[in-house]
Amino acid sequence: MYNHADETYKCPICVGIGTIKEGRSLIEPGDIVFQDELVTAFISSFNIKNNPYHVVVVPNEHIENIYDMSDGTGARIQSIAREMAIALKNAYKAQGVTIIQNNEPYGDQHAFHYHMHVIPRYGGDELYQHIYDKPTASTDERAKAAASLKGYMGKRI
Amino acid sequence: MYNHADETYKCPICVGIGTIKEGRSLIEPGDIVFQDELVTAFISSFNIKNNPYHVVVVPNEHIENIYDMSDGTGARIQSIAREMAIALKNAYKAQGVTIIQNNEPYGDQHAFHYHMHVIPRYGGDELYQHIYDKPTASTDERAKAAASLKGYMGKRI
Repeated sequence: MYNHADETYKCPICVGIGTIKEGRSLIEPGDIVFQDELVTAFISSFNIKNNPYHVVVVPNEHIENIYDMSDGTGARIQSIAREMAIALKNAYKAQGVTIIQNNEPYGDQHAFHYHMHVIPRYGGDELYQHIYDKPTASTDERAKAAASLKGYMGKRI
Repeated sequence: MYNHADETYKCPICVGIGTIKEGRSLIEPGDIVFQDELVTAFISSFNIKNNPYHVVVVPNEHIENIYDMSDGTGARIQSIAREMAIALKNAYKAQGVTIIQNNEPYGDQHAFHYHMHVIPRYGGDELYQHIYDKPTASTDERAKAAASLKGYMGKRI
């Protein structure tokens, strides 16, 4: 419901996580931090100035927004977002974590596949002053960030 | 883990949702939109300028942040956030919904009990320019907003 992508939308997130085989995506295989049968977590292709290499958690099934989310998939999204938050604490030495999930164009949603941003926070980062800038992060640096987070998946400390 | 409240912290959210009986809270009974054995949703005591009467979803159990969230409670949080997003669409005629969940002081967390903001969005609302302003919303208006949302709980349209 309240979908904004039309029938011809080639979803760049579906392409990036491998559920659609042909099409364009900024997501590279090295960006993937975690994938199971329900959800995928990957390093964002876009950096926020002082909060680089944040994680995006998505359902594998193409759902445009939260309104259409099933409880089962939503539960897994939340659980993996938590794992990612802990990994950001450990791997990036983040001083906090902010989670943002946008729905619909007026809600700042630009890719029309549900996605939850899990953002490392640091003192004085002025997140909201730079949230719309989003320069592209380099493929190599994204892959390094993904590898560093993988090492902390499942850790509880 | 990574908790910032000390042993003497009188949690205003625990007081507001009724799990602690004595103490101070800005949350009033009329603010409550939904409560079950695991979670509570209520109208925020603070308005964001162009996004008034947003909803806050919390676990009833005192958990400071996402790092300590159980999968079961996290699942219910996500499910009720979705219900609230749909209710905001229906009751407020929101044009979008943004969900924000902050952890730790450097992550903009000020009340040390996990809470997820479910925020109605509108064209030109400039959410992030006003996100730190937060004037207090009137008790009567909050109660009206809560009542309007209750009427749409469980709706799927």
